[in-house]
Amino acid sequence: MSKNLTALRQYMRQQRIDAVVVPTNDPHFSEYVADHFKCRQWLTGFTGSAGTAVVTPYSAALYTDSRYFLQAEQQLQNSGFELKKEGLPETESIAEYIKKSIGKGTVGVDGRLYSVTAFNALKQELEPLTLKCVDDPFAEIWSNRPSLPNGKAFLLDVKQTGQTIVGKLCAIRATMKPAITQGIYVVSALDEVAWLLNLRGGDVAYTPVALAYAIVDMDDKQTHLFINTQKLDSEAVAELEKQKIRLHEYHEFESKLEYIALGCQAIVNPNKTSINILKILEKHSDKIFTESNPFGTIAALKAVKNKVEIEGTRRAMVADGVAWVRFWKWLEEHVGSGSITEINAAEKLRILRAQHPEFVEDSFAPIVGYKAHGAIVHYSATHESNIALGRETFILIDTGAQYSCGTTDITRTLHLGTPTEEEKTDYTLVLKGHLQLSAAKFPQGTRGAQLDMLARQPLMQRHMTYLHGTGHGVGHFLGVHEGPQSIRLNENPTLLEAGMLTSCEPGVYKTGRYGIRIENIVLTVPDGESEFGKFLQFEPVTLCPFDTKAVDSRLLNPTDIEQINEYHSKVYELLSPLLSEEEKEFLKQKTLPLL
Amino acid sequence: MSKNLTALRQYMRQQRIDAVVVPTNDPHFSEYVADHFKCRQWLTGFTGSAGTAVVTPYSAALYTDSRYFLQAEQQLQNSGFELKKEGLPETESIAEYIKKSIGKGTVGVDGRLYSVTAFNALKQELEPLTLKCVDDPFAEIWSNRPSLPNGKAFLLDVKQTGQTIVGKLCAIRATMKPAITQGIYVVSALDEVAWLLNLRGGDVAYTPVALAYAIVDMDDKQTHLFINTQKLDSEAVAELEKQKIRLHEYHEFESKLEYIALGCQAIVNPNKTSINILKILEKHSDKIFTESNPFGTIAALKAVKNKVEIEGTRRAMVADGVAWVRFWKWLEEHVGSGSITEINAAEKLRILRAQHPEFVEDSFAPIVGYKAHGAIVHYSATHESNIALGRETFILIDTGAQYSCGTTDITRTLHLGTPTEEEKTDYTLVLKGHLQLSAAKFPQGTRGAQLDMLARQPLMQRHMTYLHGTGHGVGHFLGVHEGPQSIRLNENPTLLEAGMLTSCEPGVYKTGRYGIRIENIVLTVPDGESEFGKFLQFEPVTLCPFDTKAVDSRLLNPTDIEQINEYHSKVYELLSPLLSEEEKEFLKQKTLPLL
Repeated sequence: MSKNLTALRQYMRQQRIDAVVVPTNDPHFSEYVADHFKCRQWLTGFTGSAGTAVVTPYSAALYTDSRYFLQAEQQLQNSGFELKKEGLPETESIAEYIKKSIGKGTVGVDGRLYSVTAFNALKQELEPLTLKCVDDPFAEIWSNRPSLPNGKAFLLDVKQTGQTIVGKLCAIRATMKPAITQGIYVVSALDEVAWLLNLRGGDVAYTPVALAYAIVDMDDKQTHLFINTQKLDSEAVAELEKQKIRLHEYHEFESKLEYIALGCQAIVNPNKTSINILKILEKHSDKIFTESNPFGTIAALKAVKNKVEIEGTRRAMVADGVAWVRFWKWLEEHVGSGSITEINAAEKLRILRAQHPEFVEDSFAPIVGYKAHGAIVHYSATHESNIALGRETFILIDTGAQYSCGTTDITRTLHLGTPTEEEKTDYTLVLKGHLQLSAAKFPQGTRGAQLDMLARQPLMQRHMTYLHGTGHGVGHFLGVHEGPQSIRLNENPTLLEAGMLTSCEPGVYKTGRYGIRIENIVLTVPDGESEFGKFLQFEPVTLCPFDTKAVDSRLLNPTDIEQINEYHSKVYELLSPLLSEEEKEFLKQKTLPLL
Repeated sequence: MSKNLTALRQYMRQQRIDAVVVPTNDPHFSEYVADHFKCRQWLTGFTGSAGTAVVTPYSAALYTDSRYFLQAEQQLQNSGFELKKEGLPETESIAEYIKKSIGKGTVGVDGRLYSVTAFNALKQELEPLTLKCVDDPFAEIWSNRPSLPNGKAFLLDVKQTGQTIVGKLCAIRATMKPAITQGIYVVSALDEVAWLLNLRGGDVAYTPVALAYAIVDMDDKQTHLFINTQKLDSEAVAELEKQKIRLHEYHEFESKLEYIALGCQAIVNPNKTSINILKILEKHSDKIFTESNPFGTIAALKAVKNKVEIEGTRRAMVADGVAWVRFWKWLEEHVGSGSITEINAAEKLRILRAQHPEFVEDSFAPIVGYKAHGAIVHYSATHESNIALGRETFILIDTGAQYSCGTTDITRTLHLGTPTEEEKTDYTLVLKGHLQLSAAKFPQGTRGAQLDMLARQPLMQRHMTYLHGTGHGVGHFLGVHEGPQSIRLNENPTLLEAGMLTSCEPGVYKTGRYGIRIENIVLTVPDGESEFGKFLQFEPVTLCPFDTKAVDSRLLNPTDIEQINEYHSKVYELLSPLLSEEEKEFLKQKTLPLL
């Protein structure tokens, strides 16, 4: 049994706690967490991106989802943790596990790592046991713990963001009236702080954000930013002061919140605010609003991109398309030689993207899945799983980048050999669903869940579907996955609005054989008005040809073919001026009109 | 000012009530109410099927929706009631109207006519005013009030319903475990009582139900039926007793509920149970469950038709199709002669249906809308509005019937002249949406809201849509509109299941010109299984050709045309054996394959 687990149990005895739950979170509920916050990984040895550890005096378990069953099983050997497979009917819940293990007693969690919503849910499930917030146990027991990330933070110019800090603050206040006219709005989510203050950083993998909190005064008095001020250069400090942003050190957040909240009304989003913050507010502020609506205000404003953000995104898409075409050409020239693997294909794509001066980093861990690996939806090649690319079946390539002008996310599935009838059918139906959703027109007031079926119906006609969502929001030089809109099976009351960037990514996965997914980012744009109201449509902003090798045109309508040809002609028009003659010729071949 | 209004105000003074709200309901929350319950109509003079009257000492208003604005305006003249147009942004709510009129005081409603849900909502809106239940004011002030309806009630044989009473009671108890294992389930909705006890009646227009309540004991002890026992013949009484149903008089319901509920747990559906019943239960029973899930159990079981119900419905559809084809032939032969009006077209269709031995009555008020009338979604021709049918544009015919073997609901839109390009486009897009939804395939676990877009997208591509739902459930020789499933824009968590009958009725309405709607009833049926799970599809059970005169086949795909031809060939195959040679020839022409 690992000494880390022993250390935690010793801490539990000292603190008189009967069980501890360790989630994979940071205090900002980020999708990716910095090394400093990888307590669950340190404790269990399991390195996957998702999982929750549960420790009692005589038992310990790690909960994770199907993506990680195999990996967790290997990494947990001799760790003292048993693997609990989430999503299987026979798997007991964390609360059930704890109740069974300890019978009665007190369960502790780090109150900074549980959102108000998650804490209350766990508390209820654990009844009659007590759930209590404790200070971070790992501060004591984790020696050589990585320090908090110290990436440089920087301000974006209004020429990059399209809206000043003052403009954003006004928009927030205007949106939240008449519900809330006074009080403080406490902002914990890093991408919301970043958007609000036109601030970016390098503290979290794949997302250009800095560890920070903001507090907005709804009375137009003051905005507070809590950040390690050493991350900012003197110019940025001066600019923030000019914008009347009051700077505080990151570590002072909780203590200063006490007096800033004193006697105020306070507003928080319960899904993005820790139970610790709520407790501070409960003690010091006058009244707390924790409804999620209209308190998702920043998320909603952030989702609707302004002209500058859209123009920046278009530039990023051109850069991304150029890199992708070069990558594809390279791949075709080298595939089958035995020297190209999933990992070095991903590296090559990254290198080609990095040639662009505005490239910053990947926007998520690249998914390059050849053959059966393509059917593993969240596959990320490791040195153990990595395989060489041959001349058979499909390779699924889902990657994206952060450019300082915008964020990209694109999936193309290429056929590396001679497609079978089944492969052609599957590929063509995914493409048909992609086209059908891309071409949708819909009145204002439409939710993503209403459109989801357009992408799935061609597959469903042949008894196929996919278990993931069809579309997620995409940030502007921010998170590649952002809300509040989505295109999914599940109901989500958020309406699609002009200016939103959303992915369109149907797929089909044949376990043990191959996976197909085709993803563009689409911009919601106005499409005129009639006696039936105002209409919207999607405009694909991703610029890269679809592989047509596996297309079975008998499954496409003339309008589908026209749609492909129009898209390909736009791709050629926008990318070709940036390509060499040879690359241009390659792109020409890939964008030849289908008949 | 009408003497009825004066009488109500006098009653209010006596009872010390400052305002009264009079909805259009019966104690069972039926879609159609018997004359005895038409208090709002007696009070205001307004005869429309929907509306709420509000009376204060010095003001009175009638709230109704856009279908009835014109009619209400006329009928309310000199009534003392002002018209309040529901759904317009400038229209204040009923609660606001009352607050403005009386400032403070007590508002009274007949507690039998408000569901638990509606009462609580009104109560909250009226705060700080008091909302109180009063005895039916009209019992006192309405002289010559029609007595309670006294239609004969009768039992259906298991050969007609496919399931015995005992079988239904078992199914209810099985479904509600493990949530509820003991207690009484109080059933108020007439169609639920009818389904549960294989009972039908003639107390409500268009729906073959009897005024009745049922109480099911979850412990398998006893089932109570409250009905005016004079409606039942001695055979039915004997059969009910044999089935261990304890009979009580309808008027004894409230008094007997007190002792039946004594010390019991009680289960009610808050949307279909009056606040009066809840108050009785609160006083006498031990504990009350008012969640709507799993207490929509009967509605959910009723929605999934068994084999016998499906076979009966198919027979009803054949009967209906035969009548419709004869009607269509008659219409073509006589239209333009000046002698055919909207009203006598509806009568003719009714007469043709009535030739079938199992015909009982219309299943709703027929909608026959020629030209601009077709654009009024709930149009029902009156002697004032009735017009002769000429040889121009569209006629929309939405009608249905109750046969003792099943319920029908069909809309066809016929072009009576030479269609313009716009008419052809509109008609073809509605048809295309209808076909696309009809042909949908989807995995188990799909909600109607996910499919709605398939019917709308062809219209939306041309910036058109419709403001009503796409599909409602249909009963088996019961309500033509029933839940819990629907196919609508709005989220409804009910899953579509094999055995459900649902309408498929997209449309488009050009105000002042014409309306188009095409409606079939579709049965959800299994469609096999794959590695992606079990799939379902729809099978149209309505049997009547679509008018192809206004079809623009350039807007249809080959698969659309194939779908029309297959449907038409099935219609011909199933209806022609029942037609005369001449009728057969007519049907042959109407079902000629499109190329």
